[in-house]
Amino acid sequence: MRVFNFSAGPATLPESVLRQAADEMLDWRGSGMSVMEMSHRGKEYMEIHARALADLRELLGIPENYRTLFLQGGGLGENAIVPMNLLGGVAAGREANFVVTGSWSTKSQKEAERYGVAHIAASGKGEGFIGIPAPAQWRLSANPAYLHICTNETINGIECNPDHIGAASARLGAHVPLVADISSHMLSRPMNVAQYGVLFGGAQKNVGIAGLTVVIVREDLLDRAMPICPSAFEWKTVDANDSMFNTPPTYAIYIAGLVFQWMKAQGGLAAIEARNIEKARLLYETIDNSDFYRNTIQSDARSRMNVPFTLADESLNTAFLEGAKARGLIQLKGHKSVGGMRASIYNAMPIEGVRALVDYMREFEQRA
Amino acid sequence: MRVFNFSAGPATLPESVLRQAADEMLDWRGSGMSVMEMSHRGKEYMEIHARALADLRELLGIPENYRTLFLQGGGLGENAIVPMNLLGGVAAGREANFVVTGSWSTKSQKEAERYGVAHIAASGKGEGFIGIPAPAQWRLSANPAYLHICTNETINGIECNPDHIGAASARLGAHVPLVADISSHMLSRPMNVAQYGVLFGGAQKNVGIAGLTVVIVREDLLDRAMPICPSAFEWKTVDANDSMFNTPPTYAIYIAGLVFQWMKAQGGLAAIEARNIEKARLLYETIDNSDFYRNTIQSDARSRMNVPFTLADESLNTAFLEGAKARGLIQLKGHKSVGGMRASIYNAMPIEGVRALVDYMREFEQRA
Repeated sequence: MRVFNFSAGPATLPESVLRQAADEMLDWRGSGMSVMEMSHRGKEYMEIHARALADLRELLGIPENYRTLFLQGGGLGENAIVPMNLLGGVAAGREANFVVTGSWSTKSQKEAERYGVAHIAASGKGEGFIGIPAPAQWRLSANPAYLHICTNETINGIECNPDHIGAASARLGAHVPLVADISSHMLSRPMNVAQYGVLFGGAQKNVGIAGLTVVIVREDLLDRAMPICPSAFEWKTVDANDSMFNTPPTYAIYIAGLVFQWMKAQGGLAAIEARNIEKARLLYETIDNSDFYRNTIQSDARSRMNVPFTLADESLNTAFLEGAKARGLIQLKGHKSVGGMRASIYNAMPIEGVRALVDYMREFEQRA
Repeated sequence: MRVFNFSAGPATLPESVLRQAADEMLDWRGSGMSVMEMSHRGKEYMEIHARALADLRELLGIPENYRTLFLQGGGLGENAIVPMNLLGGVAAGREANFVVTGSWSTKSQKEAERYGVAHIAASGKGEGFIGIPAPAQWRLSANPAYLHICTNETINGIECNPDHIGAASARLGAHVPLVADISSHMLSRPMNVAQYGVLFGGAQKNVGIAGLTVVIVREDLLDRAMPICPSAFEWKTVDANDSMFNTPPTYAIYIAGLVFQWMKAQGGLAAIEARNIEKARLLYETIDNSDFYRNTIQSDARSRMNVPFTLADESLNTAFLEGAKARGLIQLKGHKSVGGMRASIYNAMPIEGVRALVDYMREFEQRA
């Protein structure tokens, strides 16, 4: 029996994708090979690769002047790869800027210090990371190379909405590219790619499996790599080789491609967003309509993907988790740095999973 | 019908591994999840991860004072990651040294120039890359941080044997660590790990699927990272976090674990080496006993894994490849930089595949 898996990542995948992967494992469409075994230079894999890139572009509506890259190293790897790609060339000597909104962006800022000045333009730390600092109050450095923001903080459960991004764009103007770590809400909602200079994220939440990083970069930013940037992670080199400068993580790209096809069959990003809104509403309402469960994030910044909550009586945490597991609701324990519970409800979590969770929450509350 | 796939990588996998992966795709041993969906912090995945590391150590007989790491970025990524990890600390200002034996080590040397002096101690280029330059004639730099060698050149079909490594160790002495890129013959034969400072390789040839890099490093070398080394690729950090500093490529590690178990069931490295010797003998004998096929690598340096060969009449190349494909023998075209043919016969290529190939070669020759 399949469980409802609320893991923050790697995370639940559409069952139809898993079935197709299992069916095609020994022989991909009469090729006599598993996708795992295909030369990345062979026509079978090249077709899978090109289709995945094209579907991603179609789903997100990526403009012509943006390149779409498949890399390795995940979000944490990208914390170094981004400054190594953006603090050279015409931007050499300029400062990386950060809006710190939680655990992920804290790590990103620290890592960037290895490559230059990593200026904190704003931080939500003083308020305990409960919202997005207003762009009007960001204090940029003298000569910013870019501004980095994490548009969904997986651990803290904070998400930027289009109003935040619109205000950020207006604040930055045309000359300071906005760089967004979209790891944990990529493809969960439509985005206006043209508002960003760079978008990146690990695949293991909404896109597929761990080991694949998606990078979307405006083409005029490809000329800013530092000389120490490893060629395997230099966006310009990766782009010039159609994401095959080194052997790409072929099987992870195949799975991402199946997920993209599943998303298109679901009706694309607008339809998926509607489902995600409904799932998040159900869960936050259950929390808000109770004195037993609590989420402290400001209402305009609550994540649709990662919903942390605490129990009024923390001594019941273990009983809550054990009862949930007994019903096939797993991975609900909150991150150790935050405590309490966290339900990650990515695209592939069906509404039935959220219904089962809120039913259990209400029942547990009544018994407590 | 499954083909015999002679791809240089990603490459053929044991059919039993693929079957098990397909069987476990929707529900890993009653967990209700695919391995793809498992949190890397959950007990199910932690068990898979620990078992894979332990089996790798057992297969290679890795001594206690060596750490075994799972990373991302492949061999090409490691070309930058190695110098970033070995040209700092007490080794700051020392030179990286290279023995250039073919295409791969040529790239490695070039990439290292981004991080310091990348001295060429010896090169087989003058002779057209047909053997391993004798260690007695290597000219090391004044103060070498390490010496890098590619112990199996995938494109050129050159492999170091234990005599080469013994002579290299003697030449270097105790103070210059030998760093070996073992990507394309890792786990194809027993190795004396104690002769090396660092061993590394991409998984997509003998170990599993693209997107996983294996690094084996002597613990006293963990303190030499340059400050610019990304933390996700800093061996000391990765080691301190049991290869979970960032989300590891969990599914690739699971597949590697299945391959390790298959290797143990085959009798371990000694038994696998015996099969590889037999497969290579069959193929090289067919080439040498003919005036039609030719391999120019010195006999002591011929690779057991990658066997390049040319046809006496190159105008027949296309006919050779088409005839092979019609019999289910695929990916035999040589690398574009070398031309001709190449048969990669990694661990998972059954002897039946090599027999089918040599039968075809003899028949093609008679018809030609």
